[in-house]
Parts: sequence; C-alpha cells; structure tokens
Amino acid sequence: MEKLQYKVLEKVSTPQDIKKLTQLELKTLCDEIRAYIIDVLANNPGHLASSLGTVELTVALHYVFNTPDDKLIWDVGHQAYSHKIITGRKDKFHTIRTYNGLSGFPKMDESQYDSFGTGHSSTSISAALGMAMASALEGNKSRQHIAVIGDGSMTGGMAFEGLNHAGVSKANLLVILNDNGIAIDKSVGALSRYLTTITTSSAYNRLKNKIWDFYGADDKGSKQKNFFRKIGVSLKSAIVKQSNLFEALNFRYFGPIDGHDVENLTKILTKLSKIQGPKLLHIVTKKGKGLKEAEKNPIVYHAPGLFDANTGKQVVEACDNKPLKYQDIFGYTIVELAERNPKILGITPAMPTGCSLNIMMEKMPGRAFDVGIAEQHAVTFAAGLAAQGMTPFCNIYSSFMQRAYDQVVHDVALQKLNVVFCLDRGGLVGEDGATHHGVFDLAYFRPIPNLTIASPLNENELRNMMYTAQKDNMGPFVIRYPRGGSVNVDWKKPFKEIEVGKGRCLRSGKDIAILSIGHIGNSALQAASIADTLGIEVGVYDMRFLKPIDESLIHEVAKTYSHIITIEDGVLKGGLGSAVAEFVADNKLKVEVHRMGIPDSFVAHGSLRELHKECRIDTDAIVEKITDIAKK
Amino acid sequence: MEKLQYKVLEKVSTPQDIKKLTQLELKTLCDEIRAYIIDVLANNPGHLASSLGTVELTVALHYVFNTPDDKLIWDVGHQAYSHKIITGRKDKFHTIRTYNGLSGFPKMDESQYDSFGTGHSSTSISAALGMAMASALEGNKSRQHIAVIGDGSMTGGMAFEGLNHAGVSKANLLVILNDNGIAIDKSVGALSRYLTTITTSSAYNRLKNKIWDFYGADDKGSKQKNFFRKIGVSLKSAIVKQSNLFEALNFRYFGPIDGHDVENLTKILTKLSKIQGPKLLHIVTKKGKGLKEAEKNPIVYHAPGLFDANTGKQVVEACDNKPLKYQDIFGYTIVELAERNPKILGITPAMPTGCSLNIMMEKMPGRAFDVGIAEQHAVTFAAGLAAQGMTPFCNIYSSFMQRAYDQVVHDVALQKLNVVFCLDRGGLVGEDGATHHGVFDLAYFRPIPNLTIASPLNENELRNMMYTAQKDNMGPFVIRYPRGGSVNVDWKKPFKEIEVGKGRCLRSGKDIAILSIGHIGNSALQAASIADTLGIEVGVYDMRFLKPIDESLIHEVAKTYSHIITIEDGVLKGGLGSAVAEFVADNKLKVEVHRMGIPDSFVAHGSLRELHKECRIDTDAIVEKITDIAKK
Repeated sequence: MEKLQYKVLEKVSTPQDIKKLTQLELKTLCDEIRAYIIDVLANNPGHLASSLGTVELTVALHYVFNTPDDKLIWDVGHQAYSHKIITGRKDKFHTIRTYNGLSGFPKMDESQYDSFGTGHSSTSISAALGMAMASALEGNKSRQHIAVIGDGSMTGGMAFEGLNHAGVSKANLLVILNDNGIAIDKSVGALSRYLTTITTSSAYNRLKNKIWDFYGADDKGSKQKNFFRKIGVSLKSAIVKQSNLFEALNFRYFGPIDGHDVENLTKILTKLSKIQGPKLLHIVTKKGKGLKEAEKNPIVYHAPGLFDANTGKQVVEACDNKPLKYQDIFGYTIVELAERNPKILGITPAMPTGCSLNIMMEKMPGRAFDVGIAEQHAVTFAAGLAAQGMTPFCNIYSSFMQRAYDQVVHDVALQKLNVVFCLDRGGLVGEDGATHHGVFDLAYFRPIPNLTIASPLNENELRNMMYTAQKDNMGPFVIRYPRGGSVNVDWKKPFKEIEVGKGRCLRSGKDIAILSIGHIGNSALQAASIADTLGIEVGVYDMRFLKPIDESLIHEVAKTYSHIITIEDGVLKGGLGSAVAEFVADNKLKVEVHRMGIPDSFVAHGSLRELHKECRIDTDAIVEKITDIAKK
Repeated sequence: MEKLQYKVLEKVSTPQDIKKLTQLELKTLCDEIRAYIIDVLANNPGHLASSLGTVELTVALHYVFNTPDDKLIWDVGHQAYSHKIITGRKDKFHTIRTYNGLSGFPKMDESQYDSFGTGHSSTSISAALGMAMASALEGNKSRQHIAVIGDGSMTGGMAFEGLNHAGVSKANLLVILNDNGIAIDKSVGALSRYLTTITTSSAYNRLKNKIWDFYGADDKGSKQKNFFRKIGVSLKSAIVKQSNLFEALNFRYFGPIDGHDVENLTKILTKLSKIQGPKLLHIVTKKGKGLKEAEKNPIVYHAPGLFDANTGKQVVEACDNKPLKYQDIFGYTIVELAERNPKILGITPAMPTGCSLNIMMEKMPGRAFDVGIAEQHAVTFAAGLAAQGMTPFCNIYSSFMQRAYDQVVHDVALQKLNVVFCLDRGGLVGEDGATHHGVFDLAYFRPIPNLTIASPLNENELRNMMYTAQKDNMGPFVIRYPRGGSVNVDWKKPFKEIEVGKGRCLRSGKDIAILSIGHIGNSALQAASIADTLGIEVGVYDMRFLKPIDESLIHEVAKTYSHIITIEDGVLKGGLGSAVAEFVADNKLKVEVHRMGIPDSFVAHGSLRELHKECRIDTDAIVEKITDIAKK
C-alpha cells in the first residue's frame, strides 16, 4: 500500500468508505484494486484471473448493499479477493493462502463480511436461500441476500436444486450469474451453450440496450414497478426463439449486462434491491480482466503462480531433473493405456487441466469427457459406460469426490462395475486449505463393499496400479494419490501387474515396523534411515492396498515385530490405522499399534511442509515416534 | 396366473410375445397387468401406485423397442413392476421384496432386461447417457437408450447435471418425463409448477391435440422429418409465454401427451425411435391409475401394505398397545420442541410422510419445508438457516444422506453450524434392500470433525437427544434411528438433557461387557438376559454417542471386564467396533474386543428378522458370541 497510485484505495478500508465515493472515484477504485491484486499476487501466488473479473461487481455490491447486514455469498470463492481487500483485510492481503494468513476462500471465522464459507462449487444459492428464509421468519423484510455464482458453478446439480426451491419461495434472494464462459477450464455443457446464445444474440442485445437506457431514466414508485413488468414482457418477446430457463423456474430474469461497467452496475443493483422475491441478474464479465496475459489465457492465469506484475509473464521455474507431478503421470499413462485398450475412456468433472486429462482430451477427443462441474453425474455416467463393457477412468479430486459418495456406493460398488476412480489431491493439499484437503477418502471409502482401494508410493506404482485396474473384471478400483510431485525422474518404466491386496516389504528391521499407504511411505523410509543412524532398525512396509488389506502381511509383521506404527496422509478415524487396529483386535494379535495420521479437526491452509508438521505426520514426527517407542 | 381374466397376459412371458399382439390386445394386456399387480400386491405388500401409473408406458416401450438390446432405465424403480412382469418374471412376481425373492427395484443381477439397477432417485439420465455414449463408441447407431424419470426425480440435481451433459452430446438418448405431479409425496418446487403450467394450458393443449392428430396420419421418410420440424416450431409458438426449459438445454421436446393411451404411445415412440440425438417426451399419467382408492390417495397407496383387491381398502392392523414408530416420535417431538423454541425449523427432501415431518408441516406450515428430492440443497439450505441463528432439524433417510455427504462436511461441520441431522432408516431397513439399508452412516460420519453423533436406545432417548441437540451452540448434531417401531408404548415423558459424550450402564456383569449403540442395544439386553439363565453375567452398556465416544466408560469397562463385545446395526468397517478397537489400541488396554456388525458385503432385501439373522446381529448371534467367549 505504499505506492502512490492507490490514491482512492488508500482511503478505503471497509464498505462504509466506498459509500462516500463519487462514481468517478468508484471507477478509479476498481482500477486500483485490480492493480493491487496484480501487484500482490505477482509475488504471493493465488487465484488471479477470477478476482480480476469481479472487481466492478464487488465494488458495486458493497456500494449498494448494506454489508455485512445484507448477506453476500461468493460461490466457490476464487473470485472474492476484491471483497477481502475492501472489507478490512487490505493490509493482510499479501498473506493470502499462507500459514496463519488469510484464507484463499471466504471464511466465516475470518470476517463478519464473509457470510458463508465456500470452496466447493454451487452451494451459494442454497445457503443464501436459507439466510433469506431466516430473515423472513424473523420478520426482516429489508435484508438482502445475494449469491454470486459463475456459469460453471451453475452446472452443478445443487445449484439447480436451490433454484427449484427458491423459485416457489417469496424469499428476498438475488442470484447474480457471473457469466464468463469459464470455470477453471472452459465451461461445457448445454447451459453454457444456452448462455452464449443469449449473450450473443444481436437482436436480443439491441433490445436490451434500449431497455436499460430507458430504465436508467426512470427511478421511482409504481412507475418503476410497471416498468419492470414491461422489461419482463419485452425481453420475453425478444427471445421468443430462446426460451428463458430461469423464468421457467419462476425467477425474475434481468440481463445480460456488462459486468465491468461499475456505474451501470450500481444503478441496476439499486433497482433490484427494491424488488421482492427471487430474481436473477445475468452479468457478462471477462476472466482475467485488466491483465492482458490473463485475458488471453484465463485457464493458465486462474492460479498462475509467480509472475511479473508489469508484463504479466509467468516466472517459469526450471524443472529439469524434477520428478513429474502425479497428475501428469496419470495424464500420460492413461493415454498410453488407452492406446492399447480400446475400452478405456477418461472422465473429469471440469478439471481437465488440474488432473491432466487434457492430455488425453487433445490426443483422443472422442474418448475423454469433461462433463462440467458435476461429480455426481460423472460417476453415474461412468457407471453407464461400464455397464456397457467400457472401462472408464473417472478422475475426481479427493475432496470433490465427497460430492459423489452415494453414486459410488449405489451405482458403481453395488453393481460391481469396472470403473477406475483416480482420486487426485488425496491427503493434505496445502494452500487451498480446509475445504480442499483430501483427507477423508480412505476412511469414507473403506466401509464400502466391493471397492478395491490402492495408493501408490511413487510414480511407477501409480502407473502399475492404473495398468492393473484396467484389466478385465477388476470391479470398482480406487487409486488415490496426492497433489504435487512424485519421487523419481525416470518414470516411464514398463508396466507390471500388481497383485491386488498384496503389500510389500521396503526394508526390514527389528521390533518396530512401519506400515504405510501411499506417497507418505517415502517419509517413513526417510525416518527409518534416520533411525538407522541412531541405532534403531525399523522395518518399512508399503501396504499398497487399504482394501483388501494384506492380512498375511500383518500376521507376519505381528509375529516378527512387537510394535507397529501406521502412517497415513489421511484422518486417523477410520483409515489405515483403524483397519490395522480392527485386524489386530479381531485376530487377538500380540502387537502394539501406534497410529499416526491427521487428528480429528479440520486443518487450515499453509504449505505442505507446515501442515505435515502441524499434523505430526512429517519425517521428524515419525522419527520421534520411533525413538519414543525404542526408549520404552 | 390362474384366474380366467388374464387371457392375454397368460400368453405373455417376454417382450417378444408382446410384439405379436394387436392394438386391441395391447389395451387388454394393460388392463390385465393392472389387475394382476393389484391382485398380487393386495396380499404381498409392495409399491403399488407408481407401477399402476406406468402400465401403458411399459407395454408400449417393450412393444416398440428391442429390449434388452435397447437399454431401458427406470429412475428410482418403484414404477417398474409391470416391466418385471412382462420380462420373464411374471410367475415370481408374488415373491417381490421377500427374502430370496424378486427385488422391489430393477437389478442387473436379476434380469438382462434390467439394464441398470436403481433405488435412489435421479440417476437414470446419467446412466443412459453413459450407455448411449458406449454404443456410439462401438459404432452402434441403432441401439436406443431410454431413461424413464418422474417429475419428482427430475428435481434432483444430478438429473440436471445429466441433461446439461446430454444436451451437447449427439447421444441416442430418449428421456421420458413421467409427469404425475407426485413423487412419494406431492411434488414441490418451481419445476413442478412449471410442468403444471405446460400441461394445463388450454391453448397449448388444443394445439398439441391438433398436432398429434395430424401426426397420426403421416408416417414416413423425409416428410416425417419435416413434420417434426413443424411440430417443433408450432409448439414453440404456442408456448411463447411458457418458455421451454428442456429446449434451453438443447433437448428436442415432445409432448405433453396422455400416458395412458397405449396405442398413441406406441405410435409416438416409434416415431421418436427414428430421431437421433437427445430428446425428451413429456407424458402425463395418473399415479395409482385403475384403483380408485389409489387414484384418490396416491401418497398412502404409494406402498399401502395389505389391502382388499376388490375394494382397494387398506387392511388396517390394530395398533393399540403397539409402540409408536421412531419416525412418529420424531414427528410429534419436533412439534413439541418447536412450540417452545422459535428457532427450530424442520426440513425434509421429499419425505414428509416417510419421516413424519408432515405433522409439523400441518401444524406449523411456515416453519417446516419440503424442499423436493434434493438432499444436497436440503443440507446447505439448513446451513444457511443456521448461519442466521436458526436451529434446523434436517431429516434425511440414512442411505439418502449419502447424497449430501460433501455438504455435511463442507457447509455444516467445517463451519460448526447448529444443524440437527435426524437420520431416519439407520441400519438395515428390510424389504427395500441393498440400495436403502442405512448401514454406512456411522462409519462415514465418524471421521468428520465437529460432528456429534448419537443414536437412541428407545423412544425416550430419541426425545431426549432431540431436546439436547436443540440447546444453544451444540454445533452439528447427528441423531440416527431405525425404521420401524420403538420400544415402549408410554413415550411421552418429560424431556431430560443428556450429557454429550456420556454413555451409561444398563446392567453390570462379570468378564463380558457388551457396548452397543442405538436400538440394537435392546437385542443386547435380551441376549444378556438369556445368558443369565445360562449362568453367564454379562454387562450391557449403551454408548449413546459414537462421537465423542465415552472414553472414561471404555477405560472403566476395560478395567472391570476381560472381554468387550461391540454390537451395531451398521457396517463393521469404521463404525462403533472400529472406534473401540482404535481406542483400545491407542491406550494399550488389556481387554479383548469382539466386534459384531454388518460384514463387508451388500445385504439384499428381506424381513428385518431374516436380515439380522443373516448378518449375525440378532439376539441369537449375540448369545452365541457370549457363550463362545465364556467357553474359552
């Protein structure tokens, strides 16, 4: 905040300060917020392009509405950085997504202006409707409840469920559809196509402009009411050939309008604030607005990492001799397997770049599907494909898989269909924080019959697990791997089938054995090496499969060692340690079990190193556990 | 099949037989199927009204399409009884929903005509689209893929996700919207209102009739193609004032037409089978059609139990001196609590009768909400209410809660909001079978931080848990109880607060202690009494809370007894027994743990008694476990 150019932003700490500004100053404020976001994020990586797209909307909303009494909910929340800046968090903004710093998402604990925490998509309409209903029950007719939701998030089924309920309510609800044709990747599906038709129809837009011109001139009482009726009618006749989906759901529909014209936005929002009942304002924005590189490539600039604030160019780290990310191992390997096995297909719910299915989508466009933000559909669509003999690989981030839990149980596991679930971002994910940590998956999938659950120690294990999973009649097969880099640079080794349910000994020892699952086994190996230097010989066993668990391995370990340490990058309740404790109890084994994993509370954001340390699952913690046991 | 009146049905075993029938015989067949369903279900309880509504549709579908090569998916599946009867299962039909008999839902294992198993709502479009895509990839252009979905199921978000994806595909997909204005209870929401507008518009229907008349006369080639274009255009101009939601999603929309005119249905389906791409046929049917009592009261006759086949009158069992069902205890108690505490609200996703929230909806209409088949929305809507200081009771069947897993984690638990989740149908549910058993809930909720998880031994415990849960700042509170009757007739005792996380001793013993959670503790008590007569003194402890678990109680039990038996009406992996095994391992307690619960495979349908026996969680099994331990 030291630079001279922030002359309006300097005066703004909270929305109260904005209400005093002139229209001209509002425009300047928007420019300055944009510059500030670019400046700060250039050196403190975060979600850039979404927030650049909503600067004017944010300023207009806080100018018009009486936040925090009026309730403002940002769907997903990637786009809420401007909101954070002008609601008392300007000076902490550079701490965004860092340990003990601001969260990358709205968070109720962080500010009274964050009416509802978000992170996963499509929740805003339901939450805002709940708040609106609460206000109505309290007899508060003036409070406003606003959900800002992107066109991508609107494809999530629960958004539709919310609209369906809200449409028959008299709730004081304003849904703002922020239409930029893009979620993290390009928006897909019929809704996106429909919105494009509306926004690009020239007849429609001519009429719309006329209406808004006229509308700007008139400003009061019953005339206004009549006027809105007129708009309704005129718009309808203008779009005879494009039926309006939102009106079918009994929402009053307004727009589309330019989401970067802050003056017009303040006027329209003021009008809308006087209309009772459910209404939807459709605004058109540009993701990445104001930074040329980001406008050109909003997918890359969704979260670009470090970049040059002046040129917008990404700071590219040299990545020679760095192991590939797990997601890329997945992306290359599925293509390799699909080239051999014509039954293999790829599915992602709106995360082609994030999970690297984009590699297959480019190479084999007919065989890889981005189904939109629609995890439930993704899973049952996969089930339908499998019912007809295909072997779909359905790649869903671990924390988003929570959205499709029932579909995995009801449509896939119960019917023993050959669907391979690749759970990317399993375990702690770092800077995205509590909403995105994939720490529950091992525990929530272990109780489900018919599932095979595997997790690779490294890139070659991932490849071999994928190879194994696509073999005939393997049934539902879950492969869980973390965010970030794998272990070895030399990843492209020939495929080898892995026996399902078989773990392996990585190194043997005395007295103490570590049983691990997945990538965290590498920390176990490191810890065992350190223990070696302290004169303690520790065995390390890579379980590979949580389910079926390798019972003979546990029997053997229990015979050879007096202590078992279990370690997992997942919650302690219900996961690997729980499975081992169950087995030890059921078989009356004489061995002490020491469970390491994520304790029973939500973990906030920070670097992986910081979070592993906090949760006591890093190498140091394992070494400490080993020495504690050895001392006794 | 002995009665004379089934003269056409007698000749029909499979769809091949139907294809030989004349139009007149088709009508007779429909009448006979209807009579047969009524006859059989009068004495063998099942889902009546839904299937009566789809007789003509079913016959027409199998007449026109080439099942099982063409794929037919029945959403939810309540309506598929006619389908079962004419696809080789006529003679086994009386075994429906009984142990080892036919399933009440479509099931892939049961028949090649059941292309996809159902049970939960809104999956059919996604599954059918998957199949259609698989056919396209195989180069099969002629195979048809048909999803039959009710207007109630269409409100489920995943149906919308499926439409959104299908609309931009070229998949050979026919969605049949079976619109009867009712799911199990009356359909609610904006979509339902919209469909009513379409179907009751007289201008619209006049035009529609004209079109279909004309349409009946023309029957071939490119004329037909032109003709369909004409219909499209004409329908559109007729509904200028009622935009069409499905066309907005790029589906070709046809209808609404009478779903009980089998001749017309066969003609229209034949035409539609020749149109490529995604299309939707809107049919209007009457739930309960053909049985006056059921037509008058389709909610009661959804699953009426025993009834008189001639009069349709239900056979009412005398229920004096029978304990109330748990669901009714919930229904009466929430009203009682809400009368004292103005913050309390009730929410159900389309199950007001099933969970008895209808009692509150009648008494306090403004404070109880049926939000449609929309579990995800129900939970986040509740979160929104709670964020504004309300205390919503969100009642969702245990197996349907799987649909809202992420919302519980992300919107409620993470934000520690005061939402009370009442999980009805927890544990085995009996005749509804694998899709409906609520056996995973304890295991899938235990890993989630901030949740309190309770389960009552009987009706008074349920009342006291509800009373406790609504106290200020209790945070998210789960109360899980089973389908069916509670224990005592005298249920309406004064409320008493229960200390959170505290279990209790029901009876003390020596050597062997049973730790139970929920209603199944009654079986534990019975088993202990029987053991008494065998000279074995068994302690019984009602844990009450799975989370936080009563650690001091377990410590004490471990000191006093050498064996702990855990028993739960839920899966063994991850539930109460798992929690106890974890605790015993973590604290190095010297006690043997014997875990009883549902093994790791899906459990089919049957009576509760049969299923408890099969799963070895009935009183006999507990007694056996006790005597086994005592022998050692």
